[in-house]
Amino acid sequence: MTNDAPRPVYFLSDSTGITAETLGNTLLTQFPANDFDRITVPFITTIEQARAVVKVIDNLAANGLRPVVFSTAVGSDIRQTLATCKGIIVDLIGTHVGVLESALGTPASGEPGRAHGLGNAARYQSRMAAVEYAMEHDDGQSLRALEKAQVILVAPSRCGKTPTTMYLALQHGIFAANFPLVDEDFEREGLPRPLRPFVSKCFGLTTNPLRLSQVRTERRRGSPYASLRQCGFELRSAERLYVSHGIPYLNSASVSVEEMAATILQKMNLKH
Amino acid sequence: MTNDAPRPVYFLSDSTGITAETLGNTLLTQFPANDFDRITVPFITTIEQARAVVKVIDNLAANGLRPVVFSTAVGSDIRQTLATCKGIIVDLIGTHVGVLESALGTPASGEPGRAHGLGNAARYQSRMAAVEYAMEHDDGQSLRALEKAQVILVAPSRCGKTPTTMYLALQHGIFAANFPLVDEDFEREGLPRPLRPFVSKCFGLTTNPLRLSQVRTERRRGSPYASLRQCGFELRSAERLYVSHGIPYLNSASVSVEEMAATILQKMNLKH
Repeated sequence: MTNDAPRPVYFLSDSTGITAETLGNTLLTQFPANDFDRITVPFITTIEQARAVVKVIDNLAANGLRPVVFSTAVGSDIRQTLATCKGIIVDLIGTHVGVLESALGTPASGEPGRAHGLGNAARYQSRMAAVEYAMEHDDGQSLRALEKAQVILVAPSRCGKTPTTMYLALQHGIFAANFPLVDEDFEREGLPRPLRPFVSKCFGLTTNPLRLSQVRTERRRGSPYASLRQCGFELRSAERLYVSHGIPYLNSASVSVEEMAATILQKMNLKH
Repeated sequence: MTNDAPRPVYFLSDSTGITAETLGNTLLTQFPANDFDRITVPFITTIEQARAVVKVIDNLAANGLRPVVFSTAVGSDIRQTLATCKGIIVDLIGTHVGVLESALGTPASGEPGRAHGLGNAARYQSRMAAVEYAMEHDDGQSLRALEKAQVILVAPSRCGKTPTTMYLALQHGIFAANFPLVDEDFEREGLPRPLRPFVSKCFGLTTNPLRLSQVRTERRRGSPYASLRQCGFELRSAERLYVSHGIPYLNSASVSVEEMAATILQKMNLKH
């Protein structure tokens, strides 16, 4: 049943709201016929703030569609306040904490969520170091400490190396470098020299010629670089290079950076 | 109740596993006394794969602590197979889908989760464009199209500008630039010239002198740049600059990039 006005969706949190958005959006993808208007309210840390949000939601509920309310608030007083609202409440913490408490035989701490806080300081610092490493090693810019890379993405220009590298670093704390494949690599049919000692760390990306040509056209319309012929040549050559060196690879045409990163972690057996 | 051997935790998904990890880890932060050993199994798309995972979990359960199993599998046959395992099952989708189905008056589609897939193609392309923009505009490298920035992070070196910018781009699709504040800016007590037309888009970062000195020491030990005196001077000067120009700012010393990004979205009223 679709409605003309989009239904309001609230993501409520005593922290960043990222968890509420992430799982809430996953659940909403199950209802594709509905139109939703999303609002995130992070950092709800006092009862007064919780009451103010409840008031807004109750107003909306009284004057239109009942809002869907995804909450990851952890503190029991905030949770209880939010639970009084007249929206459709999906309590993503409260629902599951009880199951874990009884199975683990430990009471939940009830401390506000720090899933996206600094958490383990060493782990956080290592993620930030991974971001720095990825910035320094984007597009073959630096060969310094290439041996520290856990994975080196290789591909022709505009196949998705940079965002995938950044995602591996920022989300998963992986030390990732990336390196472009260019015409001269294809002419001599070899891996770029700096990569040869690290072939076991290489992971290739490819895409479809038409898709690549479109992406390159946005950057340099009408150039040989963007031509379908050149794109086809580079991708065929790159794939041949991957196969001949035993480099695993992935077609990025219809997958997201998140999916590419998850596949790379799995295929390269990387621990994050 | 703590145990010597860490308890296995499985994050199971028919997609990337990011949602399962995100909410699962939030729930686990509620049990800080427990020691967990985390394993993510993404892309479980066939009954055979589901059965293989169940077998591994059942083996662990038979020989030690019952594993905690967070699942975001959406397809009902995969979910039912995973539900037969002898772990402590936390079904992050199934538990909530029913509530939404009855409240929305629509059956769930049962299609595998694409929360981290390409989803809306225009939205995905815009996120990727945001990453490209952030790379190009890191550390004041380019002034091209600075007016396209939704936010410009300003701060002295090593206050967290780069990872926060990348997170805003990659997670939230925000067009974010960042710009360093250096000694000469403090001498003339003004904003860097290129930023002056965009003062309303500026957001400042600061940190604690000791923390900054530690971070800079890792990079250049013993340098004047890393001295506590220089760090203190730069941070005091930067904060004075923020205040005098009405630029909102945040101390990055004890918050994560995720928290900084959420705060910036909220304070700058950015829609993502």
